[in-house]
Amino acid sequence: MIMSWLDEVKFDADGLVTVIAQDSASARVLMVAWANREALAATAASGAAVYWSRSRKRLWHKGEDSGHHQKVVDIRLDCDGDVVLYAVEQTGGIACHTGRESCFFRRLEGEQWQTIDPVIKDPELMYGATGRK
Amino acid sequence: MIMSWLDEVKFDADGLVTVIAQDSASARVLMVAWANREALAATAASGAAVYWSRSRKRLWHKGEDSGHHQKVVDIRLDCDGDVVLYAVEQTGGIACHTGRESCFFRRLEGEQWQTIDPVIKDPELMYGATGRK
Repeated sequence: MIMSWLDEVKFDADGLVTVIAQDSASARVLMVAWANREALAATAASGAAVYWSRSRKRLWHKGEDSGHHQKVVDIRLDCDGDVVLYAVEQTGGIACHTGRESCFFRRLEGEQWQTIDPVIKDPELMYGATGRK
Repeated sequence: MIMSWLDEVKFDADGLVTVIAQDSASARVLMVAWANREALAATAASGAAVYWSRSRKRLWHKGEDSGHHQKVVDIRLDCDGDVVLYAVEQTGGIACHTGRESCFFRRLEGEQWQTIDPVIKDPELMYGATGRK
C-alpha cells in the first residue's frame, strides 16, 4: 500500500485537524478552523482553502458566501502532525466573518481585551442579515 | 462580580484553549500548544509563555528544560474566543523540540511532506537523551 501524505496527518477523534491560515504577504495570522481528510485533499487539489464547518457539519469552501476566498500557496504540517498551516492569499483582505482582516482583532491590554482592528466591510453587506462566513 | 478577561476565553471540555506562538520579529508561526486558565493567567502576569502540557498533565513553562523561553509581547484572542495568539521573542531562535526554529518544518510538495528547515541544535544537547521540550 502506498502511504498518502494524508496518512501522516493525525486527525482527532472527530476526524478533524486544526488549521491555521496565515497571510502569505503580511504574515498575519488570519484565522483558525478545522479540516477533515476530505477538506485537506480538496484544498491540496484545488489550491483554494476548504475547511470542515463544525456548526454546519459539512465542507466549507472559504468564501462561498462572502466571496473572500483563500488561495493556498503553501501547506505545512507541524512536528506532531496534528496542526496544519496554510499560507494564503486572502481575497478582499478580509478573513473574519466580522468583516475584519483577521479573527485576532482583540488584544489584551492590562486586564481587558481591546478591539484594535477596524471593520473593513459591514458583515451584513457580506452575508445579508442571516449568513455567516 | 467583576468580569475577568479570562472569563471571555472559551475553554473546551478539558478546560483548555488552543494557543499559537508567533515570532514577533519574523512573524513565523512557531508552534501550537494548549493553555488552561492558570497557564494564561501566569503568562499574562509573568510575560513569559506558560502552557499546559497534556502529556505531563501539568503547567509547562516553555524553556524550562531547553532554555528556549518565550517572552510574550502581545496576546490576542480570536472572534470565537477559543484560540489565543501569542507574539513572542523566542530565546535561541528555536521553538521546536526537534531543535528547529518552528514546528512547521514540513511542507507539502506534490504528494509528500518534505522537511525543509534545518536542525539548529541537536535535541540531545537540548534535553539529554530522555527529555522533551
